[in-house]
Formats: sequence, C-alpha cells, structure tokens
Amino acid sequence: MSWTLTEDDLPDLARGAAVLGTGGGGDPYVGRLLVREAIREHGPITILDPSEVDDDALVIPTAQMGAPTVVHEKLPNGAEPVLALRTLEKHLGRPADATMPIECGGINSMIPLLVGARLGLPVVDADGMGRAFPELQMETFGVYGVPGSPMAIGGERGETTVIDTGADNRRMEWLARGVTIRLGGVAHIAEYAMSGADVKRTAVPQTLSLALTVGRTIRFARERNEDPVERLASALRSTPYQHLRVLFRGKVSDVERRTEAGFARGRAAAVSFDGASKLEILFQNENLLATVDGSVRCVVPDLICVLEAATAEPITTETLRYGQRVTVVGISTPSLMRTPEALDTFGPAAFGLPHPFVPVEEIA
Amino acid sequence: MSWTLTEDDLPDLARGAAVLGTGGGGDPYVGRLLVREAIREHGPITILDPSEVDDDALVIPTAQMGAPTVVHEKLPNGAEPVLALRTLEKHLGRPADATMPIECGGINSMIPLLVGARLGLPVVDADGMGRAFPELQMETFGVYGVPGSPMAIGGERGETTVIDTGADNRRMEWLARGVTIRLGGVAHIAEYAMSGADVKRTAVPQTLSLALTVGRTIRFARERNEDPVERLASALRSTPYQHLRVLFRGKVSDVERRTEAGFARGRAAAVSFDGASKLEILFQNENLLATVDGSVRCVVPDLICVLEAATAEPITTETLRYGQRVTVVGISTPSLMRTPEALDTFGPAAFGLPHPFVPVEEIA
Repeated sequence: MSWTLTEDDLPDLARGAAVLGTGGGGDPYVGRLLVREAIREHGPITILDPSEVDDDALVIPTAQMGAPTVVHEKLPNGAEPVLALRTLEKHLGRPADATMPIECGGINSMIPLLVGARLGLPVVDADGMGRAFPELQMETFGVYGVPGSPMAIGGERGETTVIDTGADNRRMEWLARGVTIRLGGVAHIAEYAMSGADVKRTAVPQTLSLALTVGRTIRFARERNEDPVERLASALRSTPYQHLRVLFRGKVSDVERRTEAGFARGRAAAVSFDGASKLEILFQNENLLATVDGSVRCVVPDLICVLEAATAEPITTETLRYGQRVTVVGISTPSLMRTPEALDTFGPAAFGLPHPFVPVEEIA
Repeated sequence: MSWTLTEDDLPDLARGAAVLGTGGGGDPYVGRLLVREAIREHGPITILDPSEVDDDALVIPTAQMGAPTVVHEKLPNGAEPVLALRTLEKHLGRPADATMPIECGGINSMIPLLVGARLGLPVVDADGMGRAFPELQMETFGVYGVPGSPMAIGGERGETTVIDTGADNRRMEWLARGVTIRLGGVAHIAEYAMSGADVKRTAVPQTLSLALTVGRTIRFARERNEDPVERLASALRSTPYQHLRVLFRGKVSDVERRTEAGFARGRAAAVSFDGASKLEILFQNENLLATVDGSVRCVVPDLICVLEAATAEPITTETLRYGQRVTVVGISTPSLMRTPEALDTFGPAAFGLPHPFVPVEEIA
C-alpha cells in the first residue's frame, strides 16, 4: 500500500536511517532539513510499495556519494540530486516515473525524498543496500543483474557528468569516485535506472518503512522509559532483519579516522565498564567488523550499530569520540543480502577482510 | 583548398608536430603508426581548409589527454577517440561533419587523422592551441567564446564519460583530468563541438599544413646537407609563426621530471659547449620558460623547442636526457594567440609564472 510521508515523520525516519547506516551513510540531519523545507514548499511525499510499481515504469534512484567526513562540512544546496536525475532522464530520453533510495542508511534515505518532494515524484519504499555501504557497486540491484550505468553526477555549480561503463559497476564506482573527489569529496548521483519489474526482483523491499519503524520504536521506548534496545529487538523480530544481538556495552577508548581516496577509513575501540574486555570496530565509511577481545562478533553485510547507551541514539563513525558510553548491537540482514553472489559483492572479502561471513545470530 | 593526406606525409607531419609540441603534446610516433594502419585500411584522408567548412557544419575536435610520461608507456588501441566522438555525437543528437585537432603539437596532430581515416570524415586544417598546451581550457576556441562542454571521454575498456560544465572550461579540465587519472593517466576526448562559422572565427588556421612544412623543411635540409635550423627559420618567415630565434646551443646537464596530478612537471638544464653559460627550461608537459644565465629568453605562449644539434630532430620533455647536444629555438606565435584574452588563458600567469609575456622577437 502506498502511504504519505509528512514533515512529522522525518525525525523518526532520520534516526532509523542513522541506525541502518551502521555508522556511515552520511549524517541524515542536513538531509532531513532539506526534505522538511521541500515538504513545506511542495507538500507531502507519496511512498510507493514496490509491489505497486508498474512493471514497465522507469525508476531512477538518487543519492549522495562521498566521504561522511566531508559531507559533514560541505552541505548540499538541494538542487544537485535533482540535476543528477534530470541529466540521466535526458540521457535516457525518458522521464522517471519514480525515484528510490540506493541505500536506506544515513543521508541517502533522505536524498530521494528531497527529489520526490521537489519534483512531485513518488518514492519507492525499497533500496539496493538494505543498509549503507561505501561503494556504488555494492547494490543488490547489481548483484541481481541491473547495471548501474549509465549514471549521472550533479555538482553544486551545475556541472554534470554522465558515466557509462556497461555492466562493470566496479569500474563505474572507480570513475564516479574520481569525479566526486574532484568535486570536493561529495557529489549527487542518479544511477541504476530500472524497470518496475527489476525493482521487484532486485531491491530490498520496505526499507524506508523499516527506518521509520526503527526510529519510532526508539522514540516510543524513551517516552515510556522502556529499554530502547530491547524494544528495537522485539520490533525487528517480525521483519526480514530478524535478529538483534547486543555485542558490547562500554566506553569509547580510542578512535582513529582518516579521509583517504575519497573514503573515511579507520577503527574505533571501546572498553567494557568493568575494564575486562575490549571491543574493536573497523570501518570504511560504514562499520565493517566488530571483534570483542579478538573474536569476531559481527561482520559485514550484517549491521554493526553503535548506539548511545542511555538513549539508543545512533552514533556515526564521524561523531564517535573518546568517552562516549555506547551499546553496540549487531542486526541480521535479509536472506537476499546473504546469497553467495551478494557476499561476493559486499561480504567481508569485498572489503579485503580475511574473515568468512557468519550470520550474527549464529555467533552470539 | 582541400588536400589529401597520404601515408607518405606522416613522417614529416609527425616531425613537424613534435617541433610544434614544444616538448609536450605526447610523442607522435605511436599516433603515426595508428594513422598509417588506418590509411592502409580505409584510404587517404581529406584535409579541409577552414575557409571551406560550411558555416553551419558541425565540427567535433578529437584528442588524447594525459601526461606524456604515461602516454609513452600506455598505448591506445585506436578505438578510444572514435568512441569519444561517437559518444559526443549521440549526446548532441547530431553527427559530426568533420573532426579537427585541438592542438597541433605532438600526438594530437595524429588523433583526429586517425578518427578521420577510420570514419571517412574530413579533418579541418586548424587547431585551438597553435602548438601544444597541457590543459583543456587553453584553447583559442574558448578564448573567443566557444565552450568546451559538453565533452566526451572514451576509455580503453569502452567506458564513456560526458562532462558538461557550461561555459566553465577550467572546471571541465579539472573534472576531465580527474577521470583521466582514474583511467590510468591517459584518455581520449571529443570536445569544443562547434559550427563551421566558429571554426573560422576562433581556430588557428592551417596548422596541420604548418606541421607538414616544418617536418619537410627539416628533412629537405638534412638531405641537402644544409643547416636545418636556418632553413626552418626561413620557411617560417612567410607564415604567422614568423620569427625563429636560436636561444642556446649546448649539452643537456640535468633533467628533473615527475608525474604529478596527471601532468609531467619538471625542469631541464643545459651548459654551453664552452661551459660559459647555462640554459634552464621549466615545463608542465610542454616547455614554458627558457632562461639563459638567469635572463628570460622565451616564455609561453611562444614556442620553446629543443632540437638535436646535428639533425634538428625535436626532443620531447620525456626523452630529454643528460649529455644530449641540443639547439634550443624560440618561435613566435600568431597574433590570435597574443591578445590580452589569449594571454589570460595561456600566457605566463596562467601557469603561475611571475614573468610578463614578451614576444620572443623582442627579447633576442
């Protein structure tokens, strides 16, 4: 069923998207403000369930690309993702019937809403990452045969770039990252243009709804003085993100972060409140691996989410800092994201990690 | 008058283009072989005088872009510039009536010939640099109001990129250089698509003919045991490149060269045969500044050409080496390239040099 997203939904959606961003995906705060202004100007946004999209409709996903550390400082003016969509429409010679997120984590849950509100286009309630990932080829769209090319990039000065690497989505990422770096480390894109039939076949469904549920659940629990992590675990149980495991509780003791080749890379450490055990998290924009006292507790593509201990407010990699009291949770991903071909594209080996993928629910 | 370029013209053209390359523009050798094969397969190439191009014809210049040091090792397969042209034609929705060089120095005198031979397209006898320059905005086309955008880039794996920065040709260079670096340091491009009327208004005319004349003059002088530099000076006297001055004769004593941000940058030094005076040349792909004992003898956009002392064979910056015996000459550029707006774009200040432009014929 289609539904309408209003200004009031945005804080919950942003909070949920930050959880699903697993530390990355860019801070949704600025995106949320841009969407709020767009809704105030143009009215609420129609969200389409993927099952409702016509098989032959043209869906053009829109997103922001860049290192979160840069996104944090270099704010979009809001016209860039619209420019990217318009550029790709012109290149394809056909207007989009809807837009869609390519990732449901962080700011990229907001960018398609911004485009939808500004252009009066519906937004499909689905995405291609089921979380946030750092690179453009890391999409269930691509895993199941939809090429990312041709893609369009819009810059803040109205520059446009159209890249076509055929079926080679890694090569597309490589070239688009080069352009993004030249644009100052952040750019806005339209890519993986596809039919409604392909949306149904390749997208992770209902992830905007999921983000909204996650954000609402945390807020309700706070309002009722319940344990938000426990409430979140029980809310997820009936979704494809079935298993939530608490991996660690403690205090951030060290953060090492660098912006390198267009990515925020680094590691964070936390010590348990009794000082007896130590967590380590490795990240490339997003959290990739969590170990406790040297043993793997959760690994990509499962979600590793760092939450403020008291409120369950998600903490992104670029806001992690010494002394924060945190609860770190692992969340299982849907089976669509755990097939051998999906793991080839965004499993541990795709990030150069030597660890095999083991579902978080089997480790804990 | 239009004329026909055959296989037999290529060695002279390549030699002349290497002189006009002023040390850069890429070694024409590989380009020459590619053009030779294309002529053998498809027949000779029609060269159009700019005055013969219809005012409303569409002319799409084609070129190679990259650091000469890389071009030297990473050879094109020959399909890339055709791919760039086809991509831009598709983007513009109109086929090209002719192609044209963007620079008449080095390999870029050859690339449009390759495209012309392969596609049966005429090549306009003109270019936008009147020599070689390292950056895409350094074009008389742009100086006199033709935008470089939209431009297309073709890669060796069939990747295409279309960049549109409106009237901002510097921004186009910046983004295209980023893509070129990602493609491995060399790429092929189609840009500055323009009408025949704009060709007549903005291009440096008859520079393919000029390169052929330069190359032939040097060969004839050798065959007749005449001084090739003297013969060249007298051949140029009746062209818009009127003044040739010998700046220095000596032995290369030092070369410092690095590939940096997609360019070959560095300096070379030579000592006179009597050891009494010293030449220094500064380059960014092309030679920019020649000083003798600390005094400026020639500065960009005038041409600084390093020639083998015995044969007047041009030496590019990437083949300069210790011990070479050289004659270094300065050649004046046409007035179209010395206007205040032209000097803004490719005069000394555009390269960060503190020296004012002084015509070579006024210094010597």
